[in-house]
Amino acid sequence: MTGGRDPICELLTTYAELNSQIVEELEGEPSPLEFMRYVARNSPFVVRGGAASWAACQAWDACYLQDLLSEQTVNVAVTPLGNADSCTEHSDYGLVFAKPWEEDQPFSDFLQYVIRQETDPSFPPDSEVRYAQTQNDNLRHEYISLFSQVQRDIPFARIALDREPDAINLWIGNSRSHTALHKDNYENVYVQILGQKNFVLMPPACQPCVNEQLLKPATYRRVGSSLELELDDNANSFVPFATWDPDKPNENATEYSVLARPVRVTLEPGDMLYLPAMWYHKVSQSCSGEGICVAVNYWYDMEFSGPLYPFGEFVRSVYMKSTTTPNGL
Amino acid sequence: MTGGRDPICELLTTYAELNSQIVEELEGEPSPLEFMRYVARNSPFVVRGGAASWAACQAWDACYLQDLLSEQTVNVAVTPLGNADSCTEHSDYGLVFAKPWEEDQPFSDFLQYVIRQETDPSFPPDSEVRYAQTQNDNLRHEYISLFSQVQRDIPFARIALDREPDAINLWIGNSRSHTALHKDNYENVYVQILGQKNFVLMPPACQPCVNEQLLKPATYRRVGSSLELELDDNANSFVPFATWDPDKPNENATEYSVLARPVRVTLEPGDMLYLPAMWYHKVSQSCSGEGICVAVNYWYDMEFSGPLYPFGEFVRSVYMKSTTTPNGL
Repeated sequence: MTGGRDPICELLTTYAELNSQIVEELEGEPSPLEFMRYVARNSPFVVRGGAASWAACQAWDACYLQDLLSEQTVNVAVTPLGNADSCTEHSDYGLVFAKPWEEDQPFSDFLQYVIRQETDPSFPPDSEVRYAQTQNDNLRHEYISLFSQVQRDIPFARIALDREPDAINLWIGNSRSHTALHKDNYENVYVQILGQKNFVLMPPACQPCVNEQLLKPATYRRVGSSLELELDDNANSFVPFATWDPDKPNENATEYSVLARPVRVTLEPGDMLYLPAMWYHKVSQSCSGEGICVAVNYWYDMEFSGPLYPFGEFVRSVYMKSTTTPNGL
Repeated sequence: MTGGRDPICELLTTYAELNSQIVEELEGEPSPLEFMRYVARNSPFVVRGGAASWAACQAWDACYLQDLLSEQTVNVAVTPLGNADSCTEHSDYGLVFAKPWEEDQPFSDFLQYVIRQETDPSFPPDSEVRYAQTQNDNLRHEYISLFSQVQRDIPFARIALDREPDAINLWIGNSRSHTALHKDNYENVYVQILGQKNFVLMPPACQPCVNEQLLKPATYRRVGSSLELELDDNANSFVPFATWDPDKPNENATEYSVLARPVRVTLEPGDMLYLPAMWYHKVSQSCSGEGICVAVNYWYDMEFSGPLYPFGEFVRSVYMKSTTTPNGL
């Protein structure tokens, strides 16, 4: 690396100079055209109270959800540490990509567990963490009985992008669950219903900062009363995944991590966040007074033509090449 | 270079796979939102007959322009070969960036010269080439008397981009003038009035294909009856400029030129082209039956935040680094 003349350094510096270091706050929902300007700039914004009038934001609480869903079972992601889909140290294999144990549980049992773990001081501190986080359009399937209380889509996004949402997902958990730094190839509109979500965001240009590694996938299994992390069968499959944590900047850093400028935003109930396609995001959460955190998000397919996707891939391949070439880039 | 694993090769291949190799033709002018989608994708389009109803497209011909402008002088770019602002071989200094001799001429003289050169078989074939091509908002200044006959802006672009045009330019010349491959940091809407323009277009990702060199600037001077190309005084200034010509693909090529996929489009009178910011374009032209070619273009400042500008700069710096590092990237 030769200081200012290194292309990746220049990129990160230029990007930081030309773009805001805070998440813009809008007074209200944007028009489709205004939204499209943010999509074109691949730039996030938050609308404080943008969903405050939704029935979900006014009606949902633990009791309400319990009543409506008491008769059904739901898919629950179970991990020892709230570390579903994250980079996790395995005693035998080093860093792996840890996927949760998934099981169906009666909704009432699941909800009571989440709440008691959050609010009951006598709850065993090392007990497993449960999170309803299936990202398979669950609000139009598993949780269809709740769907009429949120918007069926985000009109400004549907009109601007000229497409229906690809998936609408409900998330129910407590403060023990977190989502590790990653990115999705979706335009994402995230709506907080109960509790808070804390986002740490970084643009696609920051790929060289996140120390992406090819991790072996592993999955937790319930074995008796404990959860054991077992490598997946396919020995040759690898998951490219960020191993740098912007909240622990000195661990697993690359030479470029110091140039990242993570932006942070906390969503309160009723807030709406536009999380642009390919932005890295790490999410932690805190709970409502009742001890739950509930959110909904809308995924819209991103546009693969144009500059954004090839840019992201190019940054990755230049960084990869720089790490495998003895004299750097 | 290691074939498919070279980041620049991958970029050019990915970009070509994900993007159209033709210029999309729209049935009519887009809405501001539809336009913004093209801006976001940094993707050109043409609206056939989109400006056919403009007074300029119906009223302008040589006689009309002559009558309206007969009393005034205009700035004229003069070159021996129609090579204003182009990469030109200088007998002493090699390739230089050649700027035209500029002089004020009575409009009538200028127009008659352009027409006779185009249409009179007895006109000396090696005579100088004259082009009205000041790109300084000339339609709102020098040619203000014509301005009421074109749209005062492009409404879909003004509304989408939320800004007024930065410059509106008139171009008058004949088939001897051409515009060398270059790019501008503007969103550009180009409207053909008389004659045809032939565009060769390449997206910003093609920077490694165009063999950009740092050229010494030089300017033609009228010396007696000839034009002499003299280096500019400032010996240390250089102009970064494309030296590859997509119509002579084997000359001045880089190792990446073969991966460029130039797209071509010809504008007929009344046609409107959206030429996205940072796209390379080479332009040649042919004349109406009267022997002139007239066009108007609207420049809107591009957005420097977001992925496009840093992407373009990053591609350039990676390519530059690859050409100065012994073992390539």
